[in-house]
Amino acid sequence: MDVISVIRTKRDRGRLSDEQIDWVIDAYTRGHVADEQMSALAMAILLNGMDRAEIARWTAAMINSGERMDFSSLPRPTADKHSTGGVGDKITLPLAPLVAACGAAVPQLSGRGLGHTGGTLDKLESIPGWRASLTNAEMLDVLSSAGAVICAAGDGLAPADKKLYALRDVTGTVEAIPLIASSIMSKKIAEGTGSLVLDVKVGSGAFMKTLEDARELASTMVGLGTDHGVRTVALLTDMSTPLGLTAGNALEVRESVEVLAGGGPADVVELTLALAREMLDAAGLRDADPAKALADGSAMDVWRRMIAAQGGDPDAELPVAREQHVVHASTSGVVEVVDAYAVGIAAWRLGAGRARKEDVVQLGAGIELHAKPGDSVVAGQPLMTLHTDTPEKFAYALAALDGGVLVGAPGASFEPKPIVLDRIA
Amino acid sequence: MDVISVIRTKRDRGRLSDEQIDWVIDAYTRGHVADEQMSALAMAILLNGMDRAEIARWTAAMINSGERMDFSSLPRPTADKHSTGGVGDKITLPLAPLVAACGAAVPQLSGRGLGHTGGTLDKLESIPGWRASLTNAEMLDVLSSAGAVICAAGDGLAPADKKLYALRDVTGTVEAIPLIASSIMSKKIAEGTGSLVLDVKVGSGAFMKTLEDARELASTMVGLGTDHGVRTVALLTDMSTPLGLTAGNALEVRESVEVLAGGGPADVVELTLALAREMLDAAGLRDADPAKALADGSAMDVWRRMIAAQGGDPDAELPVAREQHVVHASTSGVVEVVDAYAVGIAAWRLGAGRARKEDVVQLGAGIELHAKPGDSVVAGQPLMTLHTDTPEKFAYALAALDGGVLVGAPGASFEPKPIVLDRIA
Repeated sequence: MDVISVIRTKRDRGRLSDEQIDWVIDAYTRGHVADEQMSALAMAILLNGMDRAEIARWTAAMINSGERMDFSSLPRPTADKHSTGGVGDKITLPLAPLVAACGAAVPQLSGRGLGHTGGTLDKLESIPGWRASLTNAEMLDVLSSAGAVICAAGDGLAPADKKLYALRDVTGTVEAIPLIASSIMSKKIAEGTGSLVLDVKVGSGAFMKTLEDARELASTMVGLGTDHGVRTVALLTDMSTPLGLTAGNALEVRESVEVLAGGGPADVVELTLALAREMLDAAGLRDADPAKALADGSAMDVWRRMIAAQGGDPDAELPVAREQHVVHASTSGVVEVVDAYAVGIAAWRLGAGRARKEDVVQLGAGIELHAKPGDSVVAGQPLMTLHTDTPEKFAYALAALDGGVLVGAPGASFEPKPIVLDRIA
Repeated sequence: MDVISVIRTKRDRGRLSDEQIDWVIDAYTRGHVADEQMSALAMAILLNGMDRAEIARWTAAMINSGERMDFSSLPRPTADKHSTGGVGDKITLPLAPLVAACGAAVPQLSGRGLGHTGGTLDKLESIPGWRASLTNAEMLDVLSSAGAVICAAGDGLAPADKKLYALRDVTGTVEAIPLIASSIMSKKIAEGTGSLVLDVKVGSGAFMKTLEDARELASTMVGLGTDHGVRTVALLTDMSTPLGLTAGNALEVRESVEVLAGGGPADVVELTLALAREMLDAAGLRDADPAKALADGSAMDVWRRMIAAQGGDPDAELPVAREQHVVHASTSGVVEVVDAYAVGIAAWRLGAGRARKEDVVQLGAGIELHAKPGDSVVAGQPLMTLHTDTPEKFAYALAALDGGVLVGAPGASFEPKPIVLDRIA
């Protein structure tokens, strides 16, 4: 077996055999296949696709590249959630402690920034002292003591995926259904959760731009999960506009804490509760009341315990970017569009994301929205504030926003979109 | 400008702008764009193509990545030749000294093994002491004293191409017309030759499998050369079966020396003379007689001076592989097919080529043919001998040869193919 014949097979629109898949995943994990070879294969997969059987084998090979965890010793049922990534998608931050406060154990393995979307770990690292990397024993400790843990997948868990995920991020090979589905599911199956709720984003700021693609991704993942004995449900949710009013690491942590304090933007609260109900349902906790757990502070208590257990100070000041630039409305009217992709790219250019896997993200960088679709604004009113430590990036970020924010006529009617678009079980 | 947006443009079937091309070539040369990013872009270019204007700009950007050489101080006209690569294609070895013996100066910058085809420098390195890397001053010295020089392009010449060429070799991104044309022509234009003859191979063992693709590549390159003031002609030549009777580094040097001694296989002699006449014609030396220079030993004299001037011992023993395996004819009849691609892949698997750019080639490895299409054989007669230092590779090499050699009925009629299929000026 050699890597070039594997690359050529997919490049020339062939089907990868089970042997080719097992070999290339194993050889890449061991470093016998180089990054530049795997990225060429990833691009060929992105452009030429994989069928269901290839995806299933690719996922199994990534699971088999490492160890599998086991939470069956915990007294509580386990529930996990995964989002395919969006702009301003900080839902994991309030959701994990909320579901734990309702009685489930939430072992939430999360990732770093991928393309123009933020990463949960990058966000939490804006909390001074907080550590993303835990040993398996530490992870179980935090899960037992706090009820929820949000951390990086250990090096032993689906190491093939860990390498490939970082590689795809910097090689323009993120947006491929076979690679997205196998990446998510290999990690979640190896992690050993009993149930899983998938938040599959649809719209300009998501990797899936159409409902059709999102349905394909969701049903691929639900099939992979079910085949491996994990109770898996997917919600398709809107990502045409950012979630909440912030996109950026520390900015999103601040907004998440508002939600845990019983406030926060309505869309973030609505989606957090919808996903919490699905997770609790999948975990067999049908009588839990997540709205109450947000209102009575019990979710916040879990958050504080969880952050502290991972070395973070829940009361610490969060980083603030050195420079700000405010964008004002040029006309009065009703905001019709705040495009998620435009905001995501702009936040990434301001420093909230990375262009190479070695890059360091700016914790304070990002975008704060002062108006969302449906809001009325008057000319001269602030529409958004851009934050960065590298002000020479403002022009480049503003270029990404060009055409991404549209203000219609004053008094124009506006039809709000539902957040949850569909459910696949 | 960021590399991911450049990759995305081509991945999504867009046109790369002049600015994107200039930026990505420059950034890759400086190491700001990583190998894994460039290989993803190369795969996207391979699968989605580039138009004529993109190819012209890509070529110019690669020329501009380094210095340009100038041979105008030499008293002789310069002539160079480039082959797109085939199996058993050792033609450069006898050709360069032959054309020099006829009065031209031949500054032959050559490459290393690319995919299943051998590299001229790998072949010459099987001569003890011979050095591929020369400074520009050393190159001029050898050219002045011997009349011909075969060496690696210096680090200063089209460094972008040097990096990209090595990368494509190991990432399954060799077979792309835009990348092949720009790679060859950037080096040849920067090298400063006055005239250039292109040997564009067609057939199973070539990167171009069809005459149509080969014509497209040839006319793209002739256009690029002419636009830059280099007299450029292309011959399309057959590569459905290996050239001569050997494929492998030291094996091909031995065969080349036979040609310089006035012997050697008829097809190698025919193509060497055809290309020599084109080069001499393009250089304005229309009265030269290359057949005479082969017969009277003057080409051999240049070869010996050239090899010695680069540290090689023209009389040294060449390396021999540690193990041999003979394939015998299973039936009697007329050989109908010895497939170039099958022989090329088998030689590569035996160790004559490399799977990763860091790999070392085996100088003695390769394949020696005992029969070619049109030859009559009897059952049990040796068809070929496989050579390698790693005998565990025999089975893998034999698998590549499966179906690649066909023996027809005894006495069957056989129509030999011409070697030169077309000429594009």
